[in-house]
Formats: sequence, C-alpha cells, structure tokens
Amino acid sequence: MKTRLDRIKKDIEKLAEYNATPGQGLTRFSFSEEDRRAREYIKEQMILAGLEVYEDAAGTVVGRRNGRDNNLPSVMVGSHFDSVRNGGNFDGPAGVVTALEIARLLHENNIETEHPIEFVALVEEEGGRFGAGLFGSRAMVGRVSEQELNSNRDENGITTGEAMLKFGLDPCTIQKAKRPPGSLKAFFELHIEQGPVLEAERKDIGIVNTIVGIRHYEVEITGRPDHAGTTPMNMRADALVLSSKVVMAVNKLAKEAGEGTVATVGSLRVSPGATNIVPGKVVFTIDIRSRNEENIETIIDGVKTLLTEGCKEEGLSHSVNCKIAVSPVHVPGYIIDILKKKCRELGLSYKEMISGAGHDAMVMAEITDACLVFVPSRGGRSHCPEEWTDYEQLQKGVQLIFKTILDVAGVAKQ
Amino acid sequence: MKTRLDRIKKDIEKLAEYNATPGQGLTRFSFSEEDRRAREYIKEQMILAGLEVYEDAAGTVVGRRNGRDNNLPSVMVGSHFDSVRNGGNFDGPAGVVTALEIARLLHENNIETEHPIEFVALVEEEGGRFGAGLFGSRAMVGRVSEQELNSNRDENGITTGEAMLKFGLDPCTIQKAKRPPGSLKAFFELHIEQGPVLEAERKDIGIVNTIVGIRHYEVEITGRPDHAGTTPMNMRADALVLSSKVVMAVNKLAKEAGEGTVATVGSLRVSPGATNIVPGKVVFTIDIRSRNEENIETIIDGVKTLLTEGCKEEGLSHSVNCKIAVSPVHVPGYIIDILKKKCRELGLSYKEMISGAGHDAMVMAEITDACLVFVPSRGGRSHCPEEWTDYEQLQKGVQLIFKTILDVAGVAKQ
Repeated sequence: MKTRLDRIKKDIEKLAEYNATPGQGLTRFSFSEEDRRAREYIKEQMILAGLEVYEDAAGTVVGRRNGRDNNLPSVMVGSHFDSVRNGGNFDGPAGVVTALEIARLLHENNIETEHPIEFVALVEEEGGRFGAGLFGSRAMVGRVSEQELNSNRDENGITTGEAMLKFGLDPCTIQKAKRPPGSLKAFFELHIEQGPVLEAERKDIGIVNTIVGIRHYEVEITGRPDHAGTTPMNMRADALVLSSKVVMAVNKLAKEAGEGTVATVGSLRVSPGATNIVPGKVVFTIDIRSRNEENIETIIDGVKTLLTEGCKEEGLSHSVNCKIAVSPVHVPGYIIDILKKKCRELGLSYKEMISGAGHDAMVMAEITDACLVFVPSRGGRSHCPEEWTDYEQLQKGVQLIFKTILDVAGVAKQ
Repeated sequence: MKTRLDRIKKDIEKLAEYNATPGQGLTRFSFSEEDRRAREYIKEQMILAGLEVYEDAAGTVVGRRNGRDNNLPSVMVGSHFDSVRNGGNFDGPAGVVTALEIARLLHENNIETEHPIEFVALVEEEGGRFGAGLFGSRAMVGRVSEQELNSNRDENGITTGEAMLKFGLDPCTIQKAKRPPGSLKAFFELHIEQGPVLEAERKDIGIVNTIVGIRHYEVEITGRPDHAGTTPMNMRADALVLSSKVVMAVNKLAKEAGEGTVATVGSLRVSPGATNIVPGKVVFTIDIRSRNEENIETIIDGVKTLLTEGCKEEGLSHSVNCKIAVSPVHVPGYIIDILKKKCRELGLSYKEMISGAGHDAMVMAEITDACLVFVPSRGGRSHCPEEWTDYEQLQKGVQLIFKTILDVAGVAKQ
C-alpha cells in the first residue's frame, strides 16, 4: 500500500487554483469564494474515498470513516486549508492532502481500523482574514467565544460571525463544534517545516517532540521629538537609540539561551519618523519562542532590566505589554516512538526537533494526544509565493503518517 | 529709540491667526489662503512704515526703504512666514516681525541710512507644501529651476508652478527674483533657536558664527524575511539587528566627534514589519550636522565600515545614498564683532554658537554677508504647537538687530 505521487501533486495543484491572487502567491481566506471552491474539491475527494462528509459548526470540513468499534474515540488527521495573503501552496494544504491520500488508501485497500478515523480540513488557522487564527481547532476545543465572533473583523469591517452567516454557517451554534472529552484518541498533522533545518541537514522528516511556548510583547519607548539639528547629543531623549539597544539584546539573549530558543523584533515603528527629528516614540514587538519557558523568562527579564536602566539614564519612559502567552506543548513519547520506528521501517531519515511555530496540533493537544510531523521547506521559505516542498518529500511524510495511523487506529481487517 | 513690546506681541499674534489648523498649532503653507491673509497683514504693516512694497517673482514680500545713496548695495533683513504642518507661531514670523518693527522704528524716528534697506518676508522656507524648502531665498540667489516648478507637487498633486499661477504669480518669471551680484551688502535674520541651549545657559542671544554643514543619507539593508518561529538564530539574515547596530554607532560617533556635531537616525521603516517575521529589509535615514565637514566624513565612514563588515558577517546587503550635502557657512568676523559690541552696549548676555538648522541666511550667504541671530526657545521645542519664545526675549533680539543694522547700513541723518 503505497501513497501515490500523482494524486498528491494533483491535490496540491488543484487547491492552488482556488486563489484570490493568481500570479502573486496563494491567498485563500476563510469563508470566501476561494474557500468555497476549495472545500468543494476537498469534499468531492472525501466522498470519492467513501467518507461520510459534513461541515462542523466552525466550517471545518470533516470526513468520517467508521471503525470496527464506533464507540472507540476517533483518530483525527488533517490540517488547515486557508492561507496568509500572498502565501504559498503548501502551508496547510500539505496536511489536508495527507488526509485525503490516506482516506483514499484505506478505501481502495478495504482496510478496516479498530478506531474510527476523521479526516479534517480546518479553517482560518492563519488568522489572515480576522486576525485571531487557529479558528477551526479552537472551535473543536471550545475556545471560540461569541464575543470573538462579534468583534473580530476583516479589512472590510465584516465580523467573523457575519462572514459565517453569509457563508451559510450559523455562528450561534459555534459551541457544537466542540469535541466532547475522550472523543478523540489522537490528532495527526503533517505540515511543512517553514524553516531551513531539514533541508540543511538533508533529513526527510522532522518528528516534533515539542511545540514551543510563545510570548508576544509590545514595547513602547517614549522620549522627546526634538529638532535633529539644534539639540545637542547630550540633551536628547532619543527613543530609537534605546530601542536599538533592546533589539540587539533580544538577539544576543536568545543566542545565549540556546535550546533552539529564538527571539525576534519583527515590527518597529518610529514616530514622528522624519529625517530631521529625533525619534520621540518607538513601538516594537518582541516574539520569543522556546521549548523551555525559563528561557523565555530570562530573555524578557533581561529586556525589562535594560529598559528600566536605559530609561533612567536617558530620561525616557517605557511600557511592556504581553499580548500572547502560550506554554510549550510536549508530544507524548509513545507517538514519538511509533514515528521513529515507522521512519526506520520506511527507510526515512529523520530528526527529532521542536516546532517553532504554533499549529492546529498545538491547540488540539488540549484535548487529545497531538502529533506533528514536518517535511522540508526549500530554502526554509514560507508565507510567500516561493514556498515549496518537493512532492517526493511530501509523499514520504504522507506515507509515514499513513503507517503511523494504521498503528494507532489499529488494523481490524485488511 | 526702543523697540515696542506691544507691537511685537501684536504682530506675532496677528500672524498666528492666519492658520489652517486652529487649535492644533500653526499650519500656513505658501500660496494658500492663509498665506494670502498673512501677507496682506505684512504688506499693510510695511506700508504704514513707509516702505515701498512689492512681491518678487517667487512671491516673497519685499518692503524697500531708500538710503541716502541708492546706488549702494542694500542691507536686507527678514525671515520666512510659512510654517510646517501643526507648527508654532515663532519659527519664521519672529524674524519677519523683527523686520516690521525695525521698519517702524526707522520710519517714526525719521532715520536716514546711507544704504537702502530691504525688509523681506520669505516664502516656503520649510518646504511644508512642496518639499524642497528655502524657496524664497533660493529664488533670490537664482537656485530655483523651471524643472523644480513643474515637478515638485503638494499632497493634492499641484505643482509649485501651478500653485503660483493660481496665486497670481507668474512662474515663468522666477529668474527675475534673482539678485544681481553686488546688489546686497548684508542679510540679517533673527530666528528662534529651536534648541535648548540658550535657555539652559540663560543667555539672551545666540550669535551664530557657523551654520552647520548638513548631510542626509538613506541607508537600505536587505536581509531575508524568514519565519520568526522556525528560523534558528544562526540561520537568519536579520536586517533590523544590523540596522540597530548602526543606529547606536551613529549616536556614539557623533558624541566622539565633539565640536557640537550631531547625528540622528530619525526615520526607520521595517518590512515586512510583522511580529512573527524576521525583518527582511530596513530603510533608514541618517542626518549628520557639524561645523566641521571632517566630522561628517568620519561619521559616515564609520557607518560604511560597519555596514560592510556587518553585511559580510550576516549575509546581508546594503546601499547608502547621499540625499542632501550642504557645506558649513561661516558668518563674517566683522559682523560677529559688531553683534558682540552691540550686545555689550545693550546689556544682553550672549553666546557664540553654531546653528544646527539650515535657514534662509544659509542660502543668502551665497551672495552676501549673512548674519543669523538666535533668541531662546522654551524647552528647546519647535515645529510643534508648544513652540514658544518670551516676547521680552524676542524684543531683545529685535533691538540687537536694529542697532546692528544701523551700524552696517550707516546712519546718514537722524
């Protein structure tokens, strides 16, 4: 029973057609016309694979396959099929295509599993349209509030709830998407790495043992917007000079922390922002990720100390606000062990690694054993039109997930 | 013969009324309705002071007073009456009011000078509307091209030439504003300091001996916009980390240069500029000013070395473009000597200093002996609604310029 490269390639290419920005990367926001056409393709493929197909209350496409004992919790496999603006063809769809191909293999080989299996194509993981992200998986764990549906808006001012209504979904029933405790045995997600490590180390597979903890901070430094020509160097309160010190410290502290810890100042805005005016205010973000929360604490503590001392010395003021705090998620050891064993059986090279990005698997870990497997990204590129994974590499990942699911779901008859 | 505080105060307050943004600082762009109303007030005051009033081809208001010998070159005094957006009441008008008050004093005291005197209210010094700035003075030295009139546009897409036409000026005659060589004996400008030094040192007057040389550079650093979660610290090409190093170096190098040298990164833009994406490109400005051009060279050389080394180490690329390069202007020693003598006679405390900002006097220095005198700015603030100079302080400056002009223009009869 071997996955088929032609089908995997065709799925990726077909899904790439449902795109609001042809020629400028893939843009497929949830509850859009592109979403509708993509989900029709996904549902059609699921039906052809003999699945019982429906949409849950959040709009996630679910294809169900009975097990020998339908009272057993189901094994779930899938990923999201929305994209960022001007993104690539693989972030999300790679995992959806994995689910489709596994469904087809089970169907055409008449395999009966002990546990039922659910194949899912999740929505709005990127938050590209409404900002919040991980929408389909959060709905499954009961973490989408009515307030969110009424307040998060797209760039045209349409709320998530309004968009769902227009799309034919009833936002008032969102809690129905929640999966009861114990109803899932495990969640499997294949995803592209979105980083350069697997390619650089020539590994087929990344077996994620930990999804990093993530903190996002917003820092504001306030100085005084003086004239750049007439204000002597020793009489300035330059918000950008101190901000620059923090940018460098963030970089240095992450390197010192080790354990794969990363920290980034990705957004930084200067005001007034004129050539001849000393920066009076700078607002920037800090994104810190580590498998070990202590590293995150060490970095933000270092930043806070620097800010306090720097502000005192230079006559500035500052604030630090935590915007996102997610703890690390550890993948259960038994799943790691099965994945390694299957890699060896299939002759795949692998690397145990951390995931530096949050994924639907991170959310699903709240209610079930979550498993996340990476395939290589060319040049580490992602969220851009150049995003690429060789189909042969993707196929290896699909094969690994297929074999692992057979193990976890149990083969009753084949 | 004493300047009158009430008249100085009234002039400033009246001019402040011709304002496009009442309650939000002074906004008076050239060739606007506010300009027209302000110039009507200025012309009226000039006529009352017995001046022969006209507008030159650039729109500058000129009030001429004959001397005993009208073949002698004239002494010119004034400043600009346009403002930045949401600026203050003093930047520019302080020097225009100086001219008005001196004209009134000469008139009411029936003083005849040897040289003719011209009182000017210059236009578009700030470049607030069309970007280029120093327009009125550049026209006087013949440095406004037809190309500039046709290409510089305001935010509504109107060219300088179109705006002039609509205002009743003929842009085709711009070269007529040019003053023939030898036609001016000296140019006197009183301006607010726009910096904190005079207030901090409790001086009445700043006697500018040098207007700094200015260089503006635009630096672009290009790295790679990787995912902030999945890209290890040692595999990044982060354009912001190197930019931050440069921001700090610019600050340090200026301090090391001394001689009042200042250097500022005032504008810095990060792209893509998302919390979770490593900065792929940063574009920033460097503004360097010094009385000594060697200091400017030292700083930019240091920056270039840092950029070359940093880009090599981190796999980035960069470019450095010089946008503005103005050499320092030195005020003739005989004028400095007269100003000092008059300060002593009037009991004014003074400080010889450099001007960190370019002013119309800097341009006029190309064709005549230029003199620039500062009065204190409260808190060093300028280009903002809080811009303030005590009227008593302004009056002291007016008195000083009046006495100095009498000396330079020569009193024939009084």
